[in-house]
Amino acid sequence: MSSNQIGKFFTVTSFGESHGQVIGVVIDGCPAGLPLDEADLQPDLNRRKPGQGVHTTARRETDRAEIWSGVFGGRTTGAPLCLVVHNQDADAASYETLEHLLRPGHADYPARIKYGGYADYRGGGRFSGRITAGWVMAGAVAKKLLATIGVEISAYTVAIGGVEASLPNCGEGSGPLSNPVFCPDPVAAEQMMQAIGEAIQAGDSLGGVIELMAVGVPLGWGDPVGDGLDGALARAFFAIPAVKGVEFGAGFGAARLRGSENNDPYVIQNGQIRPLTNQAGGTLGGLASGLPVVARIAFKPTPSIARAQRTVDLQAMAETTLRIEGRHDPCVVPRAVVVVEALAAIVLGDFALRAGAIPKVMVR
Amino acid sequence: MSSNQIGKFFTVTSFGESHGQVIGVVIDGCPAGLPLDEADLQPDLNRRKPGQGVHTTARRETDRAEIWSGVFGGRTTGAPLCLVVHNQDADAASYETLEHLLRPGHADYPARIKYGGYADYRGGGRFSGRITAGWVMAGAVAKKLLATIGVEISAYTVAIGGVEASLPNCGEGSGPLSNPVFCPDPVAAEQMMQAIGEAIQAGDSLGGVIELMAVGVPLGWGDPVGDGLDGALARAFFAIPAVKGVEFGAGFGAARLRGSENNDPYVIQNGQIRPLTNQAGGTLGGLASGLPVVARIAFKPTPSIARAQRTVDLQAMAETTLRIEGRHDPCVVPRAVVVVEALAAIVLGDFALRAGAIPKVMVR
Amino acid sequence: MSSNQIGKFFTVTSFGESHGQVIGVVIDGCPAGLPLDEADLQPDLNRRKPGQGVHTTARRETDRAEIWSGVFGGRTTGAPLCLVVHNQDADAASYETLEHLLRPGHADYPARIKYGGYADYRGGGRFSGRITAGWVMAGAVAKKLLATIGVEISAYTVAIGGVEASLPNCGEGSGPLSNPVFCPDPVAAEQMMQAIGEAIQAGDSLGGVIELMAVGVPLGWGDPVGDGLDGALARAFFAIPAVKGVEFGAGFGAARLRGSENNDPYVIQNGQIRPLTNQAGGTLGGLASGLPVVARIAFKPTPSIARAQRTVDLQAMAETTLRIEGRHDPCVVPRAVVVVEALAAIVLGDFALRAGAIPKVMVR
Amino acid sequence: MSSNQIGKFFTVTSFGESHGQVIGVVIDGCPAGLPLDEADLQPDLNRRKPGQGVHTTARRETDRAEIWSGVFGGRTTGAPLCLVVHNQDADAASYETLEHLLRPGHADYPARIKYGGYADYRGGGRFSGRITAGWVMAGAVAKKLLATIGVEISAYTVAIGGVEASLPNCGEGSGPLSNPVFCPDPVAAEQMMQAIGEAIQAGDSLGGVIELMAVGVPLGWGDPVGDGLDGALARAFFAIPAVKGVEFGAGFGAARLRGSENNDPYVIQNGQIRPLTNQAGGTLGGLASGLPVVARIAFKPTPSIARAQRTVDLQAMAETTLRIEGRHDPCVVPRAVVVVEALAAIVLGDFALRAGAIPKVMVR
Repeated sequence: MSSNQIGKFFTVTSFGESHGQVIGVVIDGCPAGLPLDEADLQPDLNRRKPGQGVHTTARRETDRAEIWSGVFGGRTTGAPLCLVVHNQDADAASYETLEHLLRPGHADYPARIKYGGYADYRGGGRFSGRITAGWVMAGAVAKKLLATIGVEISAYTVAIGGVEASLPNCGEGSGPLSNPVFCPDPVAAEQMMQAIGEAIQAGDSLGGVIELMAVGVPLGWGDPVGDGLDGALARAFFAIPAVKGVEFGAGFGAARLRGSENNDPYVIQNGQIRPLTNQAGGTLGGLASGLPVVARIAFKPTPSIARAQRTVDLQAMAETTLRIEGRHDPCVVPRAVVVVEALAAIVLGDFALRAGAIPKVMVR
Repeated sequence: MSSNQIGKFFTVTSFGESHGQVIGVVIDGCPAGLPLDEADLQPDLNRRKPGQGVHTTARRETDRAEIWSGVFGGRTTGAPLCLVVHNQDADAASYETLEHLLRPGHADYPARIKYGGYADYRGGGRFSGRITAGWVMAGAVAKKLLATIGVEISAYTVAIGGVEASLPNCGEGSGPLSNPVFCPDPVAAEQMMQAIGEAIQAGDSLGGVIELMAVGVPLGWGDPVGDGLDGALARAFFAIPAVKGVEFGAGFGAARLRGSENNDPYVIQNGQIRPLTNQAGGTLGGLASGLPVVARIAFKPTPSIARAQRTVDLQAMAETTLRIEGRHDPCVVPRAVVVVEALAAIVLGDFALRAGAIPKVMVR
Repeated sequence: MSSNQIGKFFTVTSFGESHGQVIGVVIDGCPAGLPLDEADLQPDLNRRKPGQGVHTTARRETDRAEIWSGVFGGRTTGAPLCLVVHNQDADAASYETLEHLLRPGHADYPARIKYGGYADYRGGGRFSGRITAGWVMAGAVAKKLLATIGVEISAYTVAIGGVEASLPNCGEGSGPLSNPVFCPDPVAAEQMMQAIGEAIQAGDSLGGVIELMAVGVPLGWGDPVGDGLDGALARAFFAIPAVKGVEFGAGFGAARLRGSENNDPYVIQNGQIRPLTNQAGGTLGGLASGLPVVARIAFKPTPSIARAQRTVDLQAMAETTLRIEGRHDPCVVPRAVVVVEALAAIVLGDFALRAGAIPKVMVR
Repeated sequence: MSSNQIGKFFTVTSFGESHGQVIGVVIDGCPAGLPLDEADLQPDLNRRKPGQGVHTTARRETDRAEIWSGVFGGRTTGAPLCLVVHNQDADAASYETLEHLLRPGHADYPARIKYGGYADYRGGGRFSGRITAGWVMAGAVAKKLLATIGVEISAYTVAIGGVEASLPNCGEGSGPLSNPVFCPDPVAAEQMMQAIGEAIQAGDSLGGVIELMAVGVPLGWGDPVGDGLDGALARAFFAIPAVKGVEFGAGFGAARLRGSENNDPYVIQNGQIRPLTNQAGGTLGGLASGLPVVARIAFKPTPSIARAQRTVDLQAMAETTLRIEGRHDPCVVPRAVVVVEALAAIVLGDFALRAGAIPKVMVR
């Protein structure tokens, strides 16, 4: 079944495993005439690439984007795009020992049961965060599409461990984020990096929260009632390993407010009707309100930790203790920022095509 | 496009408007041979029915379930089920005055733009909470299916306004909830009802949080990576008006924990491997972990309030003040409890069929 | 599963049984602002209505179209349309005797096995030609949509029994067909009616061929490679009971031609490039060629006949002889003409929306 | 949009172009535990491989199957399978001259309009018969799945040009076909090869008819009413370039029969109820009747011919004459035999999974 697929018009099908030959996607429905080459995909791939400093896994992957179909003469042809990165530094050896040891917090055991023991367990196989390299390439294509109609997508870290960023006017216009944790609040960024360092020392890991901001989403995008903008985005975000929660605008905080506090009054500004505030996070009844779409995505701490954990040895069918020495991110949040952008771009690109906001053939 | 649809195998298509003739659903994919008549749908419809005490809207609807197709001799035939309730107490008059006044926090304006002014604006039309009556009927069918394999679904209120319930062992075995707010914590329930009363006095409204608990979901249900159990449930919950956030297990709280705190260790109990704790909320990598699926859904306060709000008069294209005197729930949470159950049942029923856990023909 | 559904953007879900309460469809994806009321659906319903003269079944149905949702103020709202006709003259008695007698050429036995004996067997239940009343209503909506961009769909009888019509320039401009068999060749029409009369005398039935002509389909409509115009139309036509073959243009005849005979040369006419001939039937590689889309659909003779047939009595599990005295069309072809139009309109309406040729909101 | 996709549970997404780097498919939904390696895909690829004798194109392709994902330890893992062949002998030069010359009978012009001139025109690009190499690999996987439940699929040539094979008991048990045209009637095979030779001499081409026979399809497979076995197969067959017609059983011939001639009487054989004859071609109301599924697929003559044809030069916008000297099959039918099998296997594999006839994890 097409369960490895996201999008109805801009349809992205994912394939590949952590320690297989490749990670890839097929994009079906990308309009013809969009200028595209590997260089368009590489920057976002680089943003999620492992091995950027002490704070991430030691696994090294060049992650060079390859376009296998759908482009001719430097432009998309309207035919399916097959985008691939090859796995290189796949040190499976360190996983072989894990074949029979269940890793708490990982999908290993459910996957083993679901697939009758046939799943590729190396590095989490199909359930590895590495799969997201495919989404990132598809997201880069979607971003190029959305840019043609002025929709801009950005994501940034708002919390890691207990440290929360303070965002005066979050995101909007907050250019490229230079710090390693991609947090717009430089003071919090420092504290986050320190917290990560401490977690590493403790052989432990941290979670965090990423905020997604999509500016320029036209009023009215979305579809009732089973396929709203918020529902489609949430479903896509949960395709990212380690995501445990998604909220829009005031989100869970809205549950503690009164209607008079949470409603966004309508005003007229420069002859335009718009909500004065954005408690709704840009979505009402699944439709875009015209203000930026703002979502927050909660990530759990990396389940792979060096500290001893209770678990079960399947072969011995006995309880035991597990220390995961492998190469792991102590906190996946910084690398997940571009992944959040990618999935948001895929979903919004899909809605752009549904709405007819982007033609099926790009204007020359 | 089939955007008013939820489910791939157990496919529920919704139709109807708040002040139209009917609210209904067509269920395609329900196995043949399931005993079914209107009496099976009525109890859940009654649980969401308006007019239960001072704490809900004064709108009166008998909401009598009608089965128009798909049942023969008291059992489902395998043909599509068409389930309908008629709208009766549709007092549109009180809305006519609102035709040109945008209601803050409602989908009125986005819907007006999206549909070029052709949308049925009466009572929110297609975007009204009344639509959920259809999901509730479909959910009742899904619950009957799931009961045949021991999957039981329950939801309950865990927060209204600022009041939070304390749940020693939330849900599991916590039989029918007798209080009007469907909260398992009787003390909190009292405080919640008081808070609602105060909000009514203030011409204001409250939001809250509902917890969903699905017991008996088999280990391994779900599909990677675009169609996990959590993603599919989240998408469905966002189809409920007023939902602003969804989290599983520790959810947003997990973002503040360390891996050693958040991981669920594996142990052997009665010869069975199972996680010792359920921080994951029953889902790992989109697959069921074997423990109960636990989600929390955040509802914003009812946007319709009697207090004066700033808004815009479209006809005069001028700012004005709006007081909504109509018949509204000061807090939708109590009535939404059964709706949350219904959407969870639809999604889990869908996964039950995907997994082949329920035969396409019920065993006699 | 949504297997009772046709169309990706203009999505039509069918429900109802021959002897149930209703036959209906839900249309999801119809643009907002299309003027629509019951009167728009009635003419096509009347064209397929039974009981028009000695040549069709004696079953009487008023088949009055009812619109249950999706229309407000005389125009579509963008919400799902629920269209229904009630079954009235459902004389089930004459079928009760058939419960255990398999009707050769009908789906009774496969359906009994597929649904474990739970299927509604009365009058063929879900597999009855009566289901097509729903497609006809949906087709009438699609025709209105297509008319706004100049796409006109017509179908007509080209063969019944052995009698074949001779079509100088088939269809194009051949106004309303006045004769009972809807054949543009009046001489052949006479012979067809005579052949039907003879079949009735013999207690037998006849099949035939219907030709579909869609004029104004824009060059380039269709999608490779799994969803071409021809493939989508063929799939839809096979949803009509009794259809056994579908061909486009020269069709099976092309298999006997040489490339030099079958290719349609390109010429320039009035500054426009167009094929000189239409051997292709308006479709190349699944894409519209710009000439009329021409398909022929083969119908088998009505399986219900008064003549004695060998069959099996399930209760006695013994061979026996069956005479079907019920009320049946000796030839379904005349009544199927409007059904062929309807399914073609649904598919082409779907492609119109895919292509963005019809806006999601109709221009006022 | 997922228009390059076939199948709901066994979902095959196609990518690649005639003169691009690769032709490939992603299969989503293949059960885990199926033994699979490249050697399983090669035999069918070899059957469609060009360059087998004077009667096919001179283009040489090794078409070596590559499995990029979804297999671990020699068995499918349940993750998506990415199957690829590389294009090698892609002599584009001979096509460059055709960039502005429309090839009659090809999709060039519709594709040029549809994709605004961005389509890869080399060798027909996305519309080339070469795409079918991907379907063939997916079909080989589906055949292995179906073999586990005794469903066997075969196809063979029944007509080329005017020559028709005489099939005493067509197909069933008719082992491997040794002759180059894959026709079970050796006498007709000789005449077919002679006819092809004559067409080559005349710089012309021939069409033909292929018959599909699927033995062992369980009684009751298929889904009403928009997704019957016949409709799904027909849609898939039309995904093969050059197909112009599809019929089942008596097909168009049934339109000339009477009900008493066309109905298949039910009899009891060895305690089993079965139709005595198979005029229905194994499908009733879209459901499998229990007898072999028999379809005939009509292919038009290869549009690329050496003889002069009228056409238009887009650059000069003037009529001209075209001779296609390139490397082409004078008749695609022999190479299409395995493609027909492949698409039938994909569709039947899909229905096998829908019906739950094949488990999601293969029994060890």
